[in-house]
Amino acid sequence: MSSFKILSSTRVTRQGGVLHRCQHQSNSTACDMMFAIFLPHSYHESSPTTPALYYLSGLTCNDQNFSQKAGAFLHADAAGLALVLPDTSPRGEAVANDDAYDLGQGAGFYINATQEPWKAHFQMESYIQKELPAVINENFPGINPALKSISGHSMGGHGALTLAFKSKISGETDWKSVSAFAPICHPTACPWGKKAFENYFGSVEIGLAHDATELLKQLAEKSLLYDDILIDQGLDDEFLKEQLCLDDFESTAASVGQTVTIRRHEGMDHSYYFIAACVADHIDFHAKKLK
Amino acid sequence: MSSFKILSSTRVTRQGGVLHRCQHQSNSTACDMMFAIFLPHSYHESSPTTPALYYLSGLTCNDQNFSQKAGAFLHADAAGLALVLPDTSPRGEAVANDDAYDLGQGAGFYINATQEPWKAHFQMESYIQKELPAVINENFPGINPALKSISGHSMGGHGALTLAFKSKISGETDWKSVSAFAPICHPTACPWGKKAFENYFGSVEIGLAHDATELLKQLAEKSLLYDDILIDQGLDDEFLKEQLCLDDFESTAASVGQTVTIRRHEGMDHSYYFIAACVADHIDFHAKKLK
Repeated sequence: MSSFKILSSTRVTRQGGVLHRCQHQSNSTACDMMFAIFLPHSYHESSPTTPALYYLSGLTCNDQNFSQKAGAFLHADAAGLALVLPDTSPRGEAVANDDAYDLGQGAGFYINATQEPWKAHFQMESYIQKELPAVINENFPGINPALKSISGHSMGGHGALTLAFKSKISGETDWKSVSAFAPICHPTACPWGKKAFENYFGSVEIGLAHDATELLKQLAEKSLLYDDILIDQGLDDEFLKEQLCLDDFESTAASVGQTVTIRRHEGMDHSYYFIAACVADHIDFHAKKLK
Repeated sequence: MSSFKILSSTRVTRQGGVLHRCQHQSNSTACDMMFAIFLPHSYHESSPTTPALYYLSGLTCNDQNFSQKAGAFLHADAAGLALVLPDTSPRGEAVANDDAYDLGQGAGFYINATQEPWKAHFQMESYIQKELPAVINENFPGINPALKSISGHSMGGHGALTLAFKSKISGETDWKSVSAFAPICHPTACPWGKKAFENYFGSVEIGLAHDATELLKQLAEKSLLYDDILIDQGLDDEFLKEQLCLDDFESTAASVGQTVTIRRHEGMDHSYYFIAACVADHIDFHAKKLK
């Protein structure tokens, strides 16, 4: 009955860390989904003790960008942390798409679409919050289902922050910690987010329930704040001012009492060079919370 | 008169290491050439003390593959080592090419071609041995011209080994140390090398003077052996048996007395995952020799 299969397995650290590329038929997105998982050398099938960091990629990316460009495996191996690397959207000929890079395939925005032609497959929120963790736990029994954290880049930073906040508010899933690289912090106030919410939900207003800066207020009202959130941001990032709106998130966090460690880096851009420069600190941040 | 220009500069370590992508008009290859250079945060224009490791890429690659996928910058920054990342061939509409991935643009093999249509531009040996170091030294005065080493992957491993050996034999250039990732060790005995030498030189036999396993014998005759050479090789590398011929190099090295540290890695392939897993050790190997 399970459609899960491992397509390739590659040793990526000298110590014995392995990268598996996997495929499975998703109920949430009604199509085949690819993901990758890095297992540290300390992982053992017989002992469900390995914590996992889920990393959500940005616009145009798939499950491979982080694997190939972040240079994270040696750090994750040393920290004993598994890395789960999902795709950014449903894909395939039967799946709706758009010629623009910021809508449709490669641009799932980690929400459940309610509008045609998107709603049949663009159910990435359900996929990341529920289905993928279940697939991981079933097929990688050395992962501890209770020890998972979430991070992401750009659109995936929006995904990490909002999925973490929403799961705390609903009480359904427990992401132990959350961090982000150059996240879209306030999507209802930026062109990328407005376009996504208009298309996937039919209005920007509905998107308020999927906006990290807005959700932060609910998190505070319910006394569910994280003890810390780590965010890195390059100051030569071409998207910082118009699309990412970090200042909005920072000021709201300050006003509601959410501690956020925001590090702004001169000379760094929006690319994976920036992620590779900072990823070890995110791994350490999450590994500590998952201990 | 100098055509040199920096096209982009990106901070790639938190400490302040910078990646420059550069272009210049090459006399050797008679076309514009791209290269990248990583400068560690310890680099200072006013003090010519920074050693440099030249890294030669493999078939189909350009100056960007290593930058994006090797995850080497943090290690190089910590070691105070600059990384020089050339392209693998001349390029452009005026440059001869072939539809195959293993001949023409992207497949320069680090030799000086003597045959039509290649000889006008395919002069990568002169480019790497003489012209590029001169360009580096002129434009990056914090680099110590006397402190340079060389490494490479696959076709670039062939380039690193042969250029290092040939420069020792000729006494012209001094590469302080040499290492390689999955190098083409015996090109006159493998399909890639035979095809390249037949096309660029007109015969495989002429290629004997550009074959690491053959050059090792000359190096020994002239008592010019390196104190050690580091070679990493994945055992799941699909090219190992037919194209790379590591065993030939190893047995010749043993017979002539060249110490080679060969590390064979179970489960590792020919990709940049393998390079990323091993690159820190190559940086340490060269940094020690360049001290």
